[in-house]
Amino acid sequence: MSSLPPITDLDLRRATVCQLLHWMAIGRTHPQALAEATQEAIERINPQLNAYVGLSPGLLQEQARTAEHRRRDGVIGRLDGIPVAVKDNFDIAGWPTRAGLPGRQRPATDDAHVVARLRASGAVLVGKTNMDEGALGAATDNPHYGPTHNPWKCGYTAGGSSGGSAVAVAAGLAAAAVGSDSLGSIRIPASYCGVYALKPTHGEISARGLVPAARRLDAVGLIARSVADLTVLLQVLAGYDADDARSRRRRVALALPDWEPGKLRSGLLPDLAALGVEPEVAALFESAVARLAHALGERRTVDFADWDFARTRRAGLLLMEAEMLGSFAADLADTAHPVSPRFRELLRYAEHKSAADYAKADRVLDAATLKMRRLFSQIDVLVLPTTPQGAFPLGGLAPDNQADLTSFASLAGCPAVSIPMGTLSNGLPVGLQLVGGRGSDLRLLELAAVCSATLDADPVYPAIA
Amino acid sequence: MSSLPPITDLDLRRATVCQLLHWMAIGRTHPQALAEATQEAIERINPQLNAYVGLSPGLLQEQARTAEHRRRDGVIGRLDGIPVAVKDNFDIAGWPTRAGLPGRQRPATDDAHVVARLRASGAVLVGKTNMDEGALGAATDNPHYGPTHNPWKCGYTAGGSSGGSAVAVAAGLAAAAVGSDSLGSIRIPASYCGVYALKPTHGEISARGLVPAARRLDAVGLIARSVADLTVLLQVLAGYDADDARSRRRRVALALPDWEPGKLRSGLLPDLAALGVEPEVAALFESAVARLAHALGERRTVDFADWDFARTRRAGLLLMEAEMLGSFAADLADTAHPVSPRFRELLRYAEHKSAADYAKADRVLDAATLKMRRLFSQIDVLVLPTTPQGAFPLGGLAPDNQADLTSFASLAGCPAVSIPMGTLSNGLPVGLQLVGGRGSDLRLLELAAVCSATLDADPVYPAIA
Repeated sequence: MSSLPPITDLDLRRATVCQLLHWMAIGRTHPQALAEATQEAIERINPQLNAYVGLSPGLLQEQARTAEHRRRDGVIGRLDGIPVAVKDNFDIAGWPTRAGLPGRQRPATDDAHVVARLRASGAVLVGKTNMDEGALGAATDNPHYGPTHNPWKCGYTAGGSSGGSAVAVAAGLAAAAVGSDSLGSIRIPASYCGVYALKPTHGEISARGLVPAARRLDAVGLIARSVADLTVLLQVLAGYDADDARSRRRRVALALPDWEPGKLRSGLLPDLAALGVEPEVAALFESAVARLAHALGERRTVDFADWDFARTRRAGLLLMEAEMLGSFAADLADTAHPVSPRFRELLRYAEHKSAADYAKADRVLDAATLKMRRLFSQIDVLVLPTTPQGAFPLGGLAPDNQADLTSFASLAGCPAVSIPMGTLSNGLPVGLQLVGGRGSDLRLLELAAVCSATLDADPVYPAIA
Repeated sequence: MSSLPPITDLDLRRATVCQLLHWMAIGRTHPQALAEATQEAIERINPQLNAYVGLSPGLLQEQARTAEHRRRDGVIGRLDGIPVAVKDNFDIAGWPTRAGLPGRQRPATDDAHVVARLRASGAVLVGKTNMDEGALGAATDNPHYGPTHNPWKCGYTAGGSSGGSAVAVAAGLAAAAVGSDSLGSIRIPASYCGVYALKPTHGEISARGLVPAARRLDAVGLIARSVADLTVLLQVLAGYDADDARSRRRRVALALPDWEPGKLRSGLLPDLAALGVEPEVAALFESAVARLAHALGERRTVDFADWDFARTRRAGLLLMEAEMLGSFAADLADTAHPVSPRFRELLRYAEHKSAADYAKADRVLDAATLKMRRLFSQIDVLVLPTTPQGAFPLGGLAPDNQADLTSFASLAGCPAVSIPMGTLSNGLPVGLQLVGGRGSDLRLLELAAVCSATLDADPVYPAIA
């Protein structure tokens, strides 16, 4: 081993989870070195980026020490020693679960299911990441905890609501991160920050211990620096949870890749401009699809003329807002720690909506589910940009259609992967999205790995990382 | 065959589906004879009972003739020639789907999924059966189409909302019937009328073409004169429907019976009186359970102290009422054919409920789902009376708790079977209910068959039939 060049802190912070596991397995690095490199970077970079809003360096070091002991004893978990960031709407026992809201200081008594699984796999919890207030938004410009900055361009949004999680991974402040995605909250920041994300099939990872936004839409999602990492994380975190009413009971294993080479049927939208996709994003997408000609197989144009984006968006948002009026009743009443006027205004919309309106919105989602189900009888995968635009300046007006391209998968409970597809002329990245039928998570990841290998020949990292 | 006594019309009308199929197979009867016996009985008895509110004798005869041709050609379906009644909230192409409401005269363009399956199996559709107005109620005392009478005692309710379907089967006016069950609408009338009923696992039979009450609760259910008949009907009608957003995708076949003999764990409620079960019903139940000692295996007392009946009932009803405000908007606005003041009053409750209230009620159902899921990790089957009381006089006040014992299964999406357990001192029957975990439909039916064989040594028929 003395002949190999030493692994630098920068190497550790840019490496994938799989690479880090390998380096630890052959003794080229170890959990404490990884934790120290992470800790040092957080102290130096986090004040500028504001990815983490909850940190406990002592706890990080303690977990790393315990991981050292396990490794010495040869009894390690699947993610042993890997630093993972957790969005601040998941419970970690002993930490407050603030969900981007100002008044929540009471520590959680139990770990969320996904946090318990991370611990059981030996992962090292780094801290809790910033998010939009109540997870209602896609900018991570939080009025109480400050904005999170895009690591590619300070002053630009990281996307949201899992913005802190995406930035932690993009800037090398964690090897992977957990977030939540109800209409695109994992994939939008992944697209804006140039990282990889998976929103699994609805219910595939238990949402117990996640502050609910809209139970029908809420998915626990993953962010990492490679598709392979997402696959490993999914294997560790997925599975039936009898204590989550929305947990998905798989009768057989997730479908393994079973496409015949060259027989894949890929669905493409006929007119991206009509969906508000910016010309530069559309051009990047066309170029990416051209390079992926072999991987994507037969291309079919899919018809979304009967999909009313404004209506489905409104339906999805009403479910979230109505449920939040219940989940956040105490926060809305807490005059000592007032929520922002914007947040109050957003929820006010639902205050005047009736139970019958909710039932109607829920039926719109049933119709969307059917539309997507029919679609996936004709194609194997839907290929589209993750977001209609790249990141925009913080403080500016967020585009209305930010979540339109991610909402397909959320409304229908389908899995979706976002991978980087290139860089816009302003230096900001943007993602390519693959959406599959329910239960096709592993097949989708396999295809994403093939696509990523083609598109990502020369990975680039933000200068700040 | 000449040595066998002739099969009378009364034999045909009291026989089970399985018996009729056998008789037709060996040529002892044939579809037209069956249709004629049914038609004759309907003309004689239906004016008193009012089970059917939509009949077309010409169509019945035409279907029977076609069935004769198929039988002659030797190409028959699983239910070929069997007369089946359909509740008036399922679409039959060419017939109005009135759902117990006054103004709906436009004929349906397509068959409901379940009706199409019945046709494909060769069943003969007899007519459409009476129900509560909008399926909101459990008395089948319809203000527009008149009350349906209990065949065991004229002037008494048949239960509801599938009262007409239960009476058609109990009085020998159909061999089997299809209905809907959102909180007990199949099982309550089956209990009051002394017939057999199955509410399958939620989504097991497609609800496409059923007027929705509350999609989360709506189940297509079956009524017949034996457990074996319910099993045959389930096999014909169950299965994934890609065009129903709530259809259940089975990954493996429904679980086959796999209890070791004597190892069954049966759950029993500790205090039936506290749940409002009338003393005579409780006594019949205790006696039935004593006779079923061997079949029910180990008995465990299950704790429902934390189950708030009033609250879960309210939550389930709110989902129905809120959704009905949308489904029945045109009916509520139709001044030429006004709905009843009672129906309007019931829906008015939901008019003043907010989207947040709906979301809260939906969460109550999530909690109920978890409670039942935990229960079925400790027991295999829950055994209880189907209804807290027998049928009550028409025109009187319906008891509040009619659906409390059936709602367990509905709220949690579990399958439930009701079989007759005995007769009250006023001559009216009452049912025993078996509830199992999701997907255990076939196991539950198998157990119900064993129980039924023990309880039902001497079947009795109402005098009017």
